[in-house]
Amino acid sequence: MKLRFHNAKILTMENDSIIEGELRTDGGKISYVGEKTDSSEKFDREIDLNGDLIIPGFKDAHTHTAMTFLRSFADDLPLNDWLYQQVFPHEAKLTEEAVYVFTKLGNMEYLTSGITASFDMYMKLPAYTKACADMGFRTVLCGSINDFGGTVDGIEEEYNTYNSYDPLISYQLGFHAEYTTKREILEGMAKLSQKYKAPLYAHNSETKAEVAGCKERYGMTPTQLFDKLGMFEYGGGGFHCVWFDERDMEIFRDRGLYMVTNPASNLKLASGIAPICGMKRHGMKNFAIGTDGAASNNCLDMFREMFLVAGLQKMREEDAAACPASDVLEMATKGGALAMGLSECDVLARGKCADFAVIDLSQPNMRPFHNIAKNLVYAGSKQNVRMTVVNGKILYENGEFTTVDKNEIYERAEKIAREICGD
Amino acid sequence: MKLRFHNAKILTMENDSIIEGELRTDGGKISYVGEKTDSSEKFDREIDLNGDLIIPGFKDAHTHTAMTFLRSFADDLPLNDWLYQQVFPHEAKLTEEAVYVFTKLGNMEYLTSGITASFDMYMKLPAYTKACADMGFRTVLCGSINDFGGTVDGIEEEYNTYNSYDPLISYQLGFHAEYTTKREILEGMAKLSQKYKAPLYAHNSETKAEVAGCKERYGMTPTQLFDKLGMFEYGGGGFHCVWFDERDMEIFRDRGLYMVTNPASNLKLASGIAPICGMKRHGMKNFAIGTDGAASNNCLDMFREMFLVAGLQKMREEDAAACPASDVLEMATKGGALAMGLSECDVLARGKCADFAVIDLSQPNMRPFHNIAKNLVYAGSKQNVRMTVVNGKILYENGEFTTVDKNEIYERAEKIAREICGD
Repeated sequence: MKLRFHNAKILTMENDSIIEGELRTDGGKISYVGEKTDSSEKFDREIDLNGDLIIPGFKDAHTHTAMTFLRSFADDLPLNDWLYQQVFPHEAKLTEEAVYVFTKLGNMEYLTSGITASFDMYMKLPAYTKACADMGFRTVLCGSINDFGGTVDGIEEEYNTYNSYDPLISYQLGFHAEYTTKREILEGMAKLSQKYKAPLYAHNSETKAEVAGCKERYGMTPTQLFDKLGMFEYGGGGFHCVWFDERDMEIFRDRGLYMVTNPASNLKLASGIAPICGMKRHGMKNFAIGTDGAASNNCLDMFREMFLVAGLQKMREEDAAACPASDVLEMATKGGALAMGLSECDVLARGKCADFAVIDLSQPNMRPFHNIAKNLVYAGSKQNVRMTVVNGKILYENGEFTTVDKNEIYERAEKIAREICGD
Repeated sequence: MKLRFHNAKILTMENDSIIEGELRTDGGKISYVGEKTDSSEKFDREIDLNGDLIIPGFKDAHTHTAMTFLRSFADDLPLNDWLYQQVFPHEAKLTEEAVYVFTKLGNMEYLTSGITASFDMYMKLPAYTKACADMGFRTVLCGSINDFGGTVDGIEEEYNTYNSYDPLISYQLGFHAEYTTKREILEGMAKLSQKYKAPLYAHNSETKAEVAGCKERYGMTPTQLFDKLGMFEYGGGGFHCVWFDERDMEIFRDRGLYMVTNPASNLKLASGIAPICGMKRHGMKNFAIGTDGAASNNCLDMFREMFLVAGLQKMREEDAAACPASDVLEMATKGGALAMGLSECDVLARGKCADFAVIDLSQPNMRPFHNIAKNLVYAGSKQNVRMTVVNGKILYENGEFTTVDKNEIYERAEKIAREICGD
């Protein structure tokens, strides 16, 4: 399949400038980005974008997609009641079918927000990966072993299975978090990371209590423990990273680890505001953005996350100049891709993966055109997503999904949600 | 014009329950809300909503609509540089035509977010009110006198003019803020409020520096000064109210004043987080939500504001149970209407104004249906606004505006923005 998107503005993210021209695809790759040229090349479809904007797809660098089954089920509760009385008991009832259906529901929502890939930590991977492959959605699985499920051998098997399962799917080593995972498993995961020379990821310092608990158990923070156990010799990263001290920041800096921030979830669960500007002052350079799951967020929307990253840093720093829009846009696109190991999905250039979104600029919130990148970060909304393309295939166009029957998914989702939650 | 919206879910906001049935209009009023009934009544149009949701229109209870001309023009700057080097010099170049065009642009954006009325403080009222009247958009003007423009006599004339100008337009007494307005004017406004037995509104305690400055000048906070000057004998309210002390809260409680919060603007300009939960603990009951202008926000979207109100309070209180969704939804609809003096636009009931929005529930972010109100507050987006109705007239439907030529406005807006800002 060869596609041509012409009469477009293109923010490649190779630099800040916006090209006026066209983007062409050949299969899953970009074959051309640049000014309009005369060419006798034949395309399966040529789309006149009428001046609309092409951007690299957003990368949701930390999520639990199938948790859409609990959206708006148990909000406005203290964190522990939410987790132990609502999330865990209902997750125990999840079937393979439920994960399949709610993964598709979540992936649909990503597409409405211009998100072209997810870094997903959840359960029932056969159902999860089938849902992504059936829809044509790109995903990177993250291992989720903890004391309640999984073995190090099982993670190794997943690593080998899902890194050769489907071109749209890859797998990174990971575990849930220090507070849910005993030392023996942590050590096993460190060895596995070293055996495969592979990066390692986990929830890290999401709440103040988590860090305090780790200090009681080990006399050090989660980051310092993980580093001491040899987990970060081949890179990796942490999800949330709200309560970092200076030593944690130095470890992330020196190891080149990725800090994946989840601002909406951190607000809604009252966890706090990550010190991103402080991390930058300490020399950390690798940042990405995730939505977390719909049970805590409650939506899967990179526009909301981008505004929150910028706005919360400005407030935390008491400086309206802190955390400018261009930094945030880079985190949401290029940063996410690199955090997830998707180095071919970072920018729009010849030979890169054809993963991108078309932004409708003919909406009032995108006008006037003083600064299109700032309009995206500070004023953008799902309403502006005209098209989402993954691996050279249009999966979402003008409000419709091309690879999934939305009404079928809604019906199955309502039925399963009622069965599991009884409401 | 008589309209019938059937096969609908209806959140009337008279209470928390959702009715399954229909809503009918007759001219600018609601003639029926309730279960489906047999009737031989004839309608100009009958719309099958296929189970979609009708809610009272959101009320944007503090904004500067025509500031859309500066959207994304001068972000990521310290507050003083933003205001004195960017906002004021460019505002000085605004023409009547500019205010007309950028008001229409802002009103269009309100409609995309289900907002049916604005409480607007700005300049060049003839152009502003003509733009609203031409579009059929409901607005309440707020006086904006300060040391740089306006006289108390002029405000009185505006009050009388715009309270009998057009059924969609009304006017409330107001001044800009303590820090921009000398005592003589403040005293004049207090007298005017007493003469007309009318409520009085102003920016109040938006920044820490504003409160410190007022204490230096008068030995008390802005709220205490305003109350001492006799400004609040007939009610009114304050915009922002970020830096309130206990005495301020007691004055607002005892006078029944409205606190209008602007969380996105307060984040983006690093002003802080208003202590809404603390205000409630002190007995304050009247709250509303505003977007502020697009130069500081940068978008006019009640969905983003609602999430921020809830999320920021949870974070500030370190309690995920704080500020539940139902409270926020009430602030954004009923609270806003009452703050602005639109007591006939508060809920959906027979005889009330036909100002409402239709929410598309066939989008992935609205599923499953565990709790529709929470889905709105925590997961809703402009993408979900299928229709916006003001005064019984559909102004926005399926992405199109019925009373304005969007391309004409975009073209004029780009031209004028370039002329004023030179970019």
